[in-house]
Amino acid sequence: MRLTPTPADKFTFGLWTVGNRGRDPFGEFVRPPLDPVRAVHTLAELGAWGVNFHDNDLVPIDATAAERDQIVRGFRKALDATGMTVPMATTNLFTDPVFKDGAFTSHDGSVRAYALQKTMRAMDLGVELGAQTYVFWGGREGAEVDAAKDPVEAIKRFRDAINFLCEYARDQKYALRFALEAKPNEPRGDIYFATTASYLAFIPTLDHPDMVGVNPEVAHEQMAGLNFYHVVAQAIEAGKLFHIDLNDQKPGRFDQDLRFASESMKPLFFLVKLLEESGYDGPRHFDAHAYRTEDEQGVWDFACGCMRTYLILKEKARQFRAHAGIQALLSEIREEGAAAAGAYSPQRVRELKARSFDRQALASRRLPYERLDQMVVDLLLGV
Amino acid sequence: MRLTPTPADKFTFGLWTVGNRGRDPFGEFVRPPLDPVRAVHTLAELGAWGVNFHDNDLVPIDATAAERDQIVRGFRKALDATGMTVPMATTNLFTDPVFKDGAFTSHDGSVRAYALQKTMRAMDLGVELGAQTYVFWGGREGAEVDAAKDPVEAIKRFRDAINFLCEYARDQKYALRFALEAKPNEPRGDIYFATTASYLAFIPTLDHPDMVGVNPEVAHEQMAGLNFYHVVAQAIEAGKLFHIDLNDQKPGRFDQDLRFASESMKPLFFLVKLLEESGYDGPRHFDAHAYRTEDEQGVWDFACGCMRTYLILKEKARQFRAHAGIQALLSEIREEGAAAAGAYSPQRVRELKARSFDRQALASRRLPYERLDQMVVDLLLGV
Amino acid sequence: MRLTPTPADKFTFGLWTVGNRGRDPFGEFVRPPLDPVRAVHTLAELGAWGVNFHDNDLVPIDATAAERDQIVRGFRKALDATGMTVPMATTNLFTDPVFKDGAFTSHDGSVRAYALQKTMRAMDLGVELGAQTYVFWGGREGAEVDAAKDPVEAIKRFRDAINFLCEYARDQKYALRFALEAKPNEPRGDIYFATTASYLAFIPTLDHPDMVGVNPEVAHEQMAGLNFYHVVAQAIEAGKLFHIDLNDQKPGRFDQDLRFASESMKPLFFLVKLLEESGYDGPRHFDAHAYRTEDEQGVWDFACGCMRTYLILKEKARQFRAHAGIQALLSEIREEGAAAAGAYSPQRVRELKARSFDRQALASRRLPYERLDQMVVDLLLGV
Amino acid sequence: MRLTPTPADKFTFGLWTVGNRGRDPFGEFVRPPLDPVRAVHTLAELGAWGVNFHDNDLVPIDATAAERDQIVRGFRKALDATGMTVPMATTNLFTDPVFKDGAFTSHDGSVRAYALQKTMRAMDLGVELGAQTYVFWGGREGAEVDAAKDPVEAIKRFRDAINFLCEYARDQKYALRFALEAKPNEPRGDIYFATTASYLAFIPTLDHPDMVGVNPEVAHEQMAGLNFYHVVAQAIEAGKLFHIDLNDQKPGRFDQDLRFASESMKPLFFLVKLLEESGYDGPRHFDAHAYRTEDEQGVWDFACGCMRTYLILKEKARQFRAHAGIQALLSEIREEGAAAAGAYSPQRVRELKARSFDRQALASRRLPYERLDQMVVDLLLGV
Repeated sequence: MRLTPTPADKFTFGLWTVGNRGRDPFGEFVRPPLDPVRAVHTLAELGAWGVNFHDNDLVPIDATAAERDQIVRGFRKALDATGMTVPMATTNLFTDPVFKDGAFTSHDGSVRAYALQKTMRAMDLGVELGAQTYVFWGGREGAEVDAAKDPVEAIKRFRDAINFLCEYARDQKYALRFALEAKPNEPRGDIYFATTASYLAFIPTLDHPDMVGVNPEVAHEQMAGLNFYHVVAQAIEAGKLFHIDLNDQKPGRFDQDLRFASESMKPLFFLVKLLEESGYDGPRHFDAHAYRTEDEQGVWDFACGCMRTYLILKEKARQFRAHAGIQALLSEIREEGAAAAGAYSPQRVRELKARSFDRQALASRRLPYERLDQMVVDLLLGV
Repeated sequence: MRLTPTPADKFTFGLWTVGNRGRDPFGEFVRPPLDPVRAVHTLAELGAWGVNFHDNDLVPIDATAAERDQIVRGFRKALDATGMTVPMATTNLFTDPVFKDGAFTSHDGSVRAYALQKTMRAMDLGVELGAQTYVFWGGREGAEVDAAKDPVEAIKRFRDAINFLCEYARDQKYALRFALEAKPNEPRGDIYFATTASYLAFIPTLDHPDMVGVNPEVAHEQMAGLNFYHVVAQAIEAGKLFHIDLNDQKPGRFDQDLRFASESMKPLFFLVKLLEESGYDGPRHFDAHAYRTEDEQGVWDFACGCMRTYLILKEKARQFRAHAGIQALLSEIREEGAAAAGAYSPQRVRELKARSFDRQALASRRLPYERLDQMVVDLLLGV
Repeated sequence: MRLTPTPADKFTFGLWTVGNRGRDPFGEFVRPPLDPVRAVHTLAELGAWGVNFHDNDLVPIDATAAERDQIVRGFRKALDATGMTVPMATTNLFTDPVFKDGAFTSHDGSVRAYALQKTMRAMDLGVELGAQTYVFWGGREGAEVDAAKDPVEAIKRFRDAINFLCEYARDQKYALRFALEAKPNEPRGDIYFATTASYLAFIPTLDHPDMVGVNPEVAHEQMAGLNFYHVVAQAIEAGKLFHIDLNDQKPGRFDQDLRFASESMKPLFFLVKLLEESGYDGPRHFDAHAYRTEDEQGVWDFACGCMRTYLILKEKARQFRAHAGIQALLSEIREEGAAAAGAYSPQRVRELKARSFDRQALASRRLPYERLDQMVVDLLLGV
Repeated sequence: MRLTPTPADKFTFGLWTVGNRGRDPFGEFVRPPLDPVRAVHTLAELGAWGVNFHDNDLVPIDATAAERDQIVRGFRKALDATGMTVPMATTNLFTDPVFKDGAFTSHDGSVRAYALQKTMRAMDLGVELGAQTYVFWGGREGAEVDAAKDPVEAIKRFRDAINFLCEYARDQKYALRFALEAKPNEPRGDIYFATTASYLAFIPTLDHPDMVGVNPEVAHEQMAGLNFYHVVAQAIEAGKLFHIDLNDQKPGRFDQDLRFASESMKPLFFLVKLLEESGYDGPRHFDAHAYRTEDEQGVWDFACGCMRTYLILKEKARQFRAHAGIQALLSEIREEGAAAAGAYSPQRVRELKARSFDRQALASRRLPYERLDQMVVDLLLGV
């Protein structure tokens, strides 16, 4: 079992993940800032393929043009020295108080305009550093007070912004695809487009739907108790899995961003299996952070753990395919029985309406799911 | 304040709602069966506009053709006598053990074929009695064991079924629209298409997307802790709110189907306001049932309560529009500030990129949401 | 209906509540610091009875003795000028990184010792300013990694700390009662003593159980989806409701600390009714904060809203008691039926074992809960 | 690794678990009744130690005395033939409509009296068959309508019932210990004593607290998102873990009663470790049932799976103790640092108050929890 990551595994980390300083609603920073250049070098040593960033992870929001250029030069040098890539970039539209009631969905036209400006500049920065996917997480696009904002209008405003930015990318000849990232709540009481599926529903209404897909995140769907494997399956079936955020989360609580698969081993086994077998060839991006108890060494332990567990689960997926007992049960379970209806035709309808079904016989069919599931448990536990 | 329902309010009840006999996972029936004819007469007296049904709410699954016809005749007589309508019908694809591992998504071709046959017959029955909307709730289309079923394949099978049935409806010249109803779990560990949004995403991939919309249910989205008002807003914005199931639910627990707005007064006030102001002119369908402590009189108390609270909230929505203090705050809140970016053009981009924003000034804008929300609380509490 | 608060209503606010500056995991401060002296004056004008604080809400953690004394003098002057009280104080054992893995339950004996020292000093400060109740919220006493800490040992360590501090209070002749405050998670993945009930179970194991009670918080129990009214009822029945934290929360998500009863009108109506009817005469403490969209004026709107809604619900409780229809239904519902078993005696057992019960007759008893609940809904909505 | 269960493992199953027929709120029975005698024989063959039952799992509620005796004789014969034990029994106080609004907490004195009678008879039956633990799960002791029942009164009524039954057991010289089982909701909207901790708090208020402990159930605490390992730790620390119900559950949804550890591998690893290391020597009782897709063979697969996974996790706990890397990290993590405060004395207080702490030094202590947790993940995944 190979458990040492290599760039071919396409593991990526956000600068904000290894750079997370451990502040939370009840406590102050526990770790000093991490220089992005140092992050690139260390992640490269650990076997990662790339890093992603929000504009302000790299360039402070108030940096001058000269400062920006100097930072970017230093960062590019680190990329060149290490061979690391920047497959994805995104905009921070949530930290600054200017976005306290939304960015693209703010009532204030100036705030919306500023959010567009900030995003265009961040796209320029991302593309300059090689990004091919651009993520949109609208962390402030939501409400605590439903009297104050119209959720229908919010959708329209968000659409206007994405359409505008698609045009911008096309005009600039940027080879960018957009990936929309959903979250049900936190920091807002409720965030618009609460689930990945709500973005999948939104995309066909855009001017350039082919440019736009989704960036599902484990923690965000599990906060709502949803089955993340099913969520990603729908995105894949729709051809819209453009990026993915891997981490972990206990359902029904605050956004934990735990080390990948540190809690949900079985559900995330199925996720890894799906990613590996579906032909998805994008980054395996970890959007998580180390516990607040860790120092910098702990941050690297955390990063290694994310990649290691992914590789373990990938190997388990291979074992699953090679497992004679599991495959025999699956064959039995997947037997079609008598003919299905087939494609529609009036003739088929006549036949089908006349057909006689023995409900009890059909209901008594053996479906050995307990046995199958126990084999999966055994396989996961390495028995 | 008019609190007596009339048919113009378009209130409907499922036969299974007032007919619910109070069985639950830990207890037996507490109420005798309710004759559908009696249900129609009593609901008409109470001011309802119509009733809806699953095929087997009206006609037992093993009824002969003669029995079916006799039942239908009696039922139609009750409709004619009362003026009650049947705006919606649906198929029971979950009670019989034949569906224990799904209907349209079963591995067994025979089960899928039987589910199609049963649905076509139920559509015939529904149309015969006047239904214009046909609801699909795939209560068994899901899994406890993700090893056993492929969720990508499940989507494809579900699509095949809906496409087949769309063709059938068109071929039969049925003036039916389909409405898809989501639920995250129960009775399955996880149900495919867990949220209304996942159906909104699915519909554009159908052969006849115009025929198909959604039937969101309060309880089902609240089980996942989602903001139902936002969910319905997205359906309306997409032109896909074809039907709605009104009830109530505490988040994060079993499906409660409580009397409408008996728990979530504030969120459901915004829902009623949205329905009334959006131009939605379909049924206000109550998909709920009386507590298990009730006898038949309690069932009618329950039905009256659903309609009464809807009318109270509708009146509160009118008061909201007429409330000088609220409207003044909303005007203040919705002021646009300086010009937004407007539609895309290269010229606009140049201007926007050059524009200077005073973030602190923008961030300091007063947004009196506490005051607004307290006015809503006062309005709801009748102060 | 009197909706203007007066000191007789015993409304209190934490300095940290009106002083909350609106930072969250994804965003920076939106409001400047609020001077505690200003807080006291304004709250007094608005009708509050008192303020509470963590040691570091008033005195910075690194203040010299001289600075501390100056601050305390200024604060006391404000209290004297306004007549405001300090009924409760508490220790901040969570903000500083020293507590990153717990205070009283830390593995590090030095951290545990420092937590005791800090608490004794904070008790001195609280008592100096008049506090009679001392709250313990162990926000960092928990774990993300269950391998790292033994939860049995954690209980013992927490007990040692509380026993130590009880002795300290007694030795100092402080007329203090302790109130323990539970929370299921956030900021830790899981916090020990996750619910109020777990503290109620812990208290009888202390050296001085009479000194110690609980401080239940609406949001904390609702995060776990628990019925707060039932939680407080158990505390009252046990004689252990020493203090209460009033706010609001949507279940199953991050700690929202919303304005009192802004979401959960019906459950919190029952809470207010219980508090008012139970003889509880302690503070009605609001542990909540204004939305991040607010400026200082919005903070005062928020504070007024908390008190106003409490008074509205108190008035509704009075109406409930005076409502002929509700009281008639309650009389019917509460009829005892035939005699209960009474106190144990061997003779009673013989009689009871021989008694014959007509289950069907008993089961058919009418329990008009839908009607009763609708009357409550009407009453709440002011119809 | 021994994975074949033997009676020495003390695995037990409720008759209702392997006898579960797969009915749910939306579907009918999928399996025929299972004869208790057959259950005993098959479970014995599979390596179980005992079976438990509700009175009506064995004897129908309307059985005559003669029928009862015949059933009991047959059942005892099966126990004798197989060597199986009955370590625990309980009363069904929830299925019959007579209990629709509670048993011990019903408003109706007759219902309360009947519940006592039924329980005494069921205790007689349980003791006759060897039970030493008697479980109380008050599935109907709760409310949907908080106006209808007083939760303080409910506690008092429940206490009266338990006190009465304690006296009865003592008077009969029954060597019984009572174990109280909590659940937050389902079938009631809210159940009183929602968590194990609420029973731990209740027990000290009883007349014979020594006789009474708790029966925590994995699924019930996880429904509320609580950490079951922490819950059981508190019960053990209080000396009150009298019995335990092992199964599994996804948080925040309906009661799933899944095969033990089929979902929550990591949390339940810590549970098994705690049970095995704490000296708990009672039954390992599985309160779960097979998926509705299974036939009888699947039921036995399910039962084997429960026991097998327990044994796997028990072996993993042994490996944890023997794992040099884990133990080295734990030693590092558990180093005490400088001296803790120790037991209270005025002298200690003086010293402690004068002591100087270097917060930054203490805060910077390395706590390699990511590394430790990853070792646990590796161990669980068998790497």
